[in-house]
Amino acid sequence: MENFIFGRNSVLELLMNAEREVNKILIMKESNKNSKMEQIINIAKSRGIVYQFLPKEKFTQYKDFSHQGVIAYVSPVKYVKLDEFLLKKRENSKIIITDGVEDPHNLGSIIRTAVCAGYEAVIIPSRRNAQINNTVEKSSAGAVNHIDIIMVNSLSSAINKLKDNNFWIIATDINAVDNYYEIDYCNMNFAIVMGSENEGISSTVLKMADYKVKIPILNNFNSLNVSNAASIVMYESVKQTMQKSGICV
Amino acid sequence: MENFIFGRNSVLELLMNAEREVNKILIMKESNKNSKMEQIINIAKSRGIVYQFLPKEKFTQYKDFSHQGVIAYVSPVKYVKLDEFLLKKRENSKIIITDGVEDPHNLGSIIRTAVCAGYEAVIIPSRRNAQINNTVEKSSAGAVNHIDIIMVNSLSSAINKLKDNNFWIIATDINAVDNYYEIDYCNMNFAIVMGSENEGISSTVLKMADYKVKIPILNNFNSLNVSNAASIVMYESVKQTMQKSGICV
Repeated sequence: MENFIFGRNSVLELLMNAEREVNKILIMKESNKNSKMEQIINIAKSRGIVYQFLPKEKFTQYKDFSHQGVIAYVSPVKYVKLDEFLLKKRENSKIIITDGVEDPHNLGSIIRTAVCAGYEAVIIPSRRNAQINNTVEKSSAGAVNHIDIIMVNSLSSAINKLKDNNFWIIATDINAVDNYYEIDYCNMNFAIVMGSENEGISSTVLKMADYKVKIPILNNFNSLNVSNAASIVMYESVKQTMQKSGICV
Repeated sequence: MENFIFGRNSVLELLMNAEREVNKILIMKESNKNSKMEQIINIAKSRGIVYQFLPKEKFTQYKDFSHQGVIAYVSPVKYVKLDEFLLKKRENSKIIITDGVEDPHNLGSIIRTAVCAGYEAVIIPSRRNAQINNTVEKSSAGAVNHIDIIMVNSLSSAINKLKDNNFWIIATDINAVDNYYEIDYCNMNFAIVMGSENEGISSTVLKMADYKVKIPILNNFNSLNVSNAASIVMYESVKQTMQKSGICV
């Protein structure tokens, strides 16, 4: 399947990112031209990107996507190599690793929060994990264009390399003793690891973690959705960073 | 459409809630019988609930739902009246209000987090907001059965009634001055209000808020997904409560 982005917010986000090559934009003739649609058309004009108005019938092939009358064909997301990232990373770098997150909506939401929380990269394994597809792009509201996405064949090797480069590995695990807010996220490089929706983090990766933290569940109820759990932990680090700013940025 | 719940986790959660009437369970003959499916069958037996094994073909009508081979027909969610809730509420009660959350996945996730965070109720307006349907139940992983759901015709009247009953109203608003972690969630009844995905909180409701808080966005990027934003704020209150326990529970 050719790579396309759908929906007004996602296409707008895409157009604002100059690095991503946009081949063509399709706009549904009958759709209402609100300010977002106007912005899309204006940016397309100014960047010299081809756009076409097509009748409703031509959009039936996209009926399973909530496209809101706009589709953009693009080059695939450019993955960054872990080695490249390590060369350019900031001091006190924050990254997130997904170890088996299967639902593309969850992966998209995690990437969206990671961008909002000022994280520098997302590491995803090339197997047993959602890959960056249309749904991930849409759920991320275009955030995939604002963060380094690193795909790795072996999560264990990647984690070892991170450790060699002074990263601390923080695993979220329902059986952990410490709560997520009991560790200090300041003044260090760290990677937060989120596990799969059903199984959590794989035992190999869990063994490699420097910290294991849990999110307390106050009711007799199973667990949080993984993207919500990721948001809670990522924003604890944001909060600590902001509260101690001056000491830790 | 008759009311049904689909998916193994959701059906299991449903069966564990004795208050919800289950009329019938349909199980796909060909589906693999893992421990969750066995639990479903055992609970159905012990509660005297009718269950039927049906061939794959009979499940085609449910093809748009990720049912994992199990469907349960149920009585609708029982809504609780605001007045009833106010009579029985705990001291230092925490509730969440959605003001125009349209995506049922988001509403479901918000309810799921609310249960995990020990919130007592969710208030949803009867118009311009997702209602409790199959998708909400599924996204909540069955959490709709573990919390009071209050549907109101007028959010303004409900908020006035909450205020008369010593609730503080905390609105999340991207233009707020204070960060969400700068207020003290302990020793008070409060309601957190989350706005719609596109427009945020309506201006009428925003004016009624006692506090307005924002979640800082560290990149030049639009915003968080509403269910992730709700999780971040709800868990800040959990954290404060747990850290000060003894003083504030």
